[in-house]
Amino acid sequence: MFDFTFHNPTKIIFGAGKEALIGAELNAAGINRVLLVHGRNSVARSGLLDRVMASLKAGNIACTQFGGVVSNPLLSHTREGVALAKRDKAGAILAVGGGSVLDEAKAIAVGALADEDVWQFFIGREVERALPVFTILTLAATGSEMNGNSVITNAETRQKYNISSPHVYPRVSILNPELTHSVPLDYTAYGAVDAIAHVLEGYCTKQPGTHLQDRLVEGIIKTVIETTDLIMAEPYHAKARASFMWTATLALNGLTPAGIGAYSFPNHMIEHALSGIYNIPHGAGLSIVMPAWMKWYFPKNPSQFKRFAQEVFGLDSGEAGIAALEQWFVAIKSPVRLHEAGIPATDIEAIAENAEGLARQWGIAGLYPRDTIAEILRLAV
Amino acid sequence: MFDFTFHNPTKIIFGAGKEALIGAELNAAGINRVLLVHGRNSVARSGLLDRVMASLKAGNIACTQFGGVVSNPLLSHTREGVALAKRDKAGAILAVGGGSVLDEAKAIAVGALADEDVWQFFIGREVERALPVFTILTLAATGSEMNGNSVITNAETRQKYNISSPHVYPRVSILNPELTHSVPLDYTAYGAVDAIAHVLEGYCTKQPGTHLQDRLVEGIIKTVIETTDLIMAEPYHAKARASFMWTATLALNGLTPAGIGAYSFPNHMIEHALSGIYNIPHGAGLSIVMPAWMKWYFPKNPSQFKRFAQEVFGLDSGEAGIAALEQWFVAIKSPVRLHEAGIPATDIEAIAENAEGLARQWGIAGLYPRDTIAEILRLAV
Repeated sequence: MFDFTFHNPTKIIFGAGKEALIGAELNAAGINRVLLVHGRNSVARSGLLDRVMASLKAGNIACTQFGGVVSNPLLSHTREGVALAKRDKAGAILAVGGGSVLDEAKAIAVGALADEDVWQFFIGREVERALPVFTILTLAATGSEMNGNSVITNAETRQKYNISSPHVYPRVSILNPELTHSVPLDYTAYGAVDAIAHVLEGYCTKQPGTHLQDRLVEGIIKTVIETTDLIMAEPYHAKARASFMWTATLALNGLTPAGIGAYSFPNHMIEHALSGIYNIPHGAGLSIVMPAWMKWYFPKNPSQFKRFAQEVFGLDSGEAGIAALEQWFVAIKSPVRLHEAGIPATDIEAIAENAEGLARQWGIAGLYPRDTIAEILRLAV
Repeated sequence: MFDFTFHNPTKIIFGAGKEALIGAELNAAGINRVLLVHGRNSVARSGLLDRVMASLKAGNIACTQFGGVVSNPLLSHTREGVALAKRDKAGAILAVGGGSVLDEAKAIAVGALADEDVWQFFIGREVERALPVFTILTLAATGSEMNGNSVITNAETRQKYNISSPHVYPRVSILNPELTHSVPLDYTAYGAVDAIAHVLEGYCTKQPGTHLQDRLVEGIIKTVIETTDLIMAEPYHAKARASFMWTATLALNGLTPAGIGAYSFPNHMIEHALSGIYNIPHGAGLSIVMPAWMKWYFPKNPSQFKRFAQEVFGLDSGEAGIAALEQWFVAIKSPVRLHEAGIPATDIEAIAENAEGLARQWGIAGLYPRDTIAEILRLAV
């Protein structure tokens, strides 16, 4: 066990229909005007937006709607949101959507209280304040509903960078698993891959000997696999959707890394280059990168990979555990090779160059120079 | 998965020497006067109190010392603390000690802002406000450092009752595992029993099918057993003490029951009667009650007991799992029969009568009428 600080003040309200409480929650926080951030039209088509607006109206909360957030949310659109939040003097940002919407809402919350351009906070400036963020989640994957992370893509520079700050933990996140029943199976699979990556990166790269955290990670991965398999067989499986949703939240809320000491997120580092350049779904990029990275990293921590194989898959060797995870990605139809995502092997050098920028920002460029990143990516050809 | 709300705003600062941060944390919260609650002399003898006072002084925080909290903390002493906090207009209660000190500090925090006697809140009145509570933990067991529970004994009525309120979650809890290195092995064992009880009660009494929570519980129990065994062999085992400490915190911070629906705490219900009447350590009472209760309850939920046996002990039958847990309690020298704690079997009717009062308050008197409680206790003769 290493020193740590754990402080996750997000209030989670979990259950069917709970989005009806959003007006009351905003009221209780003394907020009377929000910028409501959402994606394309699905939240309107499903009727969710109407229900949210009704709850806001009942709470006498004024609302500026700001739709159009895309997957791999864009800096340019974030800047529009910042301008709107400032113009209308929003007291909070309300995100209604999946991880992309939540991430952009957090970025807007930061930009709305800043004089400088919001991108400054993604390339090094420390976040010192933000508008309060409230969320209604429609897709389980990123854990953004209960953490201080936001990832935004700068399309001009092709940089997919992040902020990580205590100021952008959502005040309240409403998790209604029924809202996820209609998530297509491909995006469900990508969410599963993302949740597994969130816990597996620390599990593989930390120091040995923190067994409690190992067991939490193994429990989360086993539950992701179990519930995803149930959903793949029966997309409206209510219990599986609900359990999957809460599991994905716990996968990146600070619980599993508490006390493990230094660890790194190399798969996310490499994947951000992939989805930053090619605009593929984050989870699809991760299922390509992870098996490759695991094969490359395996010799550096063989005992932990052996433990992973035994505890998660009941297998005896680390190699077999890696192969089993890759095969499971194949089974849930998430890509495991670059060409499956339409990425030519000839682009590997350019991808590695892009990823190296993030490696430098995250302080792992020593272990992951450009050549190494390219070497890992060649294992995904 | 069932509907739930999870909101645990306590900030945990974990690591050696972190008690030196208490002054800064109180300052950051705008507090300039505390009532410092502690137990007998051990915190003074160990030098901890001096270090805490130095940190308060550096932060210009005035302090009223209030020592003398006993294990199974008493209402009469709590009332003294309430009077002191009011007299000196404390802005916060700072607890320095184990679960008993923390529980009494929370009760004082409630009483300090109330016009009525503090016991009213333990027999039904709802807590609506409390002074902020800060804690420096010296004994891992109860989880009080990261939850909204407080248990106090009314010696006149022999009632050991509790409050459970969002208003008494500690603002900040400092966990320095080195402070627990000198905890005697008997109290270490009682803490281990308590932590296991905290997760096992929900695990056994909930509805089936919430596998994530099952896995979290199994991971916690396995870690408690593993680390306790290491500590029993080597009391100053730093890694085991540290892991044990954080595991005990997670065992009762709301994580494991989130989403499991209705569950009950029958072992705590019966044990509160034991330690309320006989003033035995809470964990010692639990290791007597639990095997008895498990044998009695087993037919009501055989599949979950089988799962427990398999996952925790690698055994094939529920009965074998119960026996293994009981044998482990014996191995760590925590009592498993009433007479080992000096409690005569002829007292069983009186204990059951006392426990029935709490069963009524907790709404489980239907399943646990007096006769049933006596029947369970006879399995511990």
